[in-house]
Amino acid sequence: MDDAIKKEALRLFTYGLYAVTCGVGDERNAFTANWLSQVSFEPPLVALSVENASASLAIIRRAGGFVVNVFAADQRGLAGQLGKSLLKHPQKLDGLTFGQTEHGAPTLLETLASVECVIEGEAPAGDSTLLIGRVIGAEVRQRGEPLTMLAAGFKHAG
Amino acid sequence: MDDAIKKEALRLFTYGLYAVTCGVGDERNAFTANWLSQVSFEPPLVALSVENASASLAIIRRAGGFVVNVFAADQRGLAGQLGKSLLKHPQKLDGLTFGQTEHGAPTLLETLASVECVIEGEAPAGDSTLLIGRVIGAEVRQRGEPLTMLAAGFKHAG
Repeated sequence: MDDAIKKEALRLFTYGLYAVTCGVGDERNAFTANWLSQVSFEPPLVALSVENASASLAIIRRAGGFVVNVFAADQRGLAGQLGKSLLKHPQKLDGLTFGQTEHGAPTLLETLASVECVIEGEAPAGDSTLLIGRVIGAEVRQRGEPLTMLAAGFKHAG
Repeated sequence: MDDAIKKEALRLFTYGLYAVTCGVGDERNAFTANWLSQVSFEPPLVALSVENASASLAIIRRAGGFVVNVFAADQRGLAGQLGKSLLKHPQKLDGLTFGQTEHGAPTLLETLASVECVIEGEAPAGDSTLLIGRVIGAEVRQRGEPLTMLAAGFKHAG
């Protein structure tokens, strides 16, 4: 397989950009993700790929769930900021406005909408783990166009 | 959870549109899919959600893999046609130009690019099954913009 062609083909896939929030007690994180998709209507399920090396995988497992927050089209800067590692950039969450779902999970109020999931299963996926979450809550805060990978000019694929 | 708000929030997720091709021997299908994502860089893995009730899930399992073909921005009509059930519309494949990967899997030559996967794992996902495929081949046939759910006006989410 030609690595450059594999990369080019995989970069033709279309993605949105999301802030995934997670936390339990004082421990809280928000990180930018694009590898996620709804995967079932009944029950409503969302699959999210999280890097095994990330701080967030352990936080999500301890919390038992995660929230997908949809960036608005003009939030490219915020998506870049939250794409940094929390370990290397402990100040990356400064100035954000966290909300809370009725079940106590953190949401990011700057974004268009939130979808709260509890982990229903996981599957190993190479350098990452695929978390399968059942949707237990949703909030739409603003009408607007969502941010896409293409519009942001990011290239997290290939 | 308010069902209408859940639907509205989940429809803010961004998706591309793809023809998934699969087959072994004389048995062959192509169907429109949007619930898929790359999920790992190393090794390169793609996760694809396939309805349990579909003819294709059995075909993919027998074949041991599938191919993701990226629709071009002007292929909304083709995406609609391949979104129909093969069982109810046995003529839906008429007139398509199938190619073949070096491993013998069917590709759809009308589309921009193909990514060939062998199944490495699966996970139950409600009314669907999540297939995790390792990328073993790729082809880019034309440069161009990919079709998105938003541009097509389709609403397979919620």
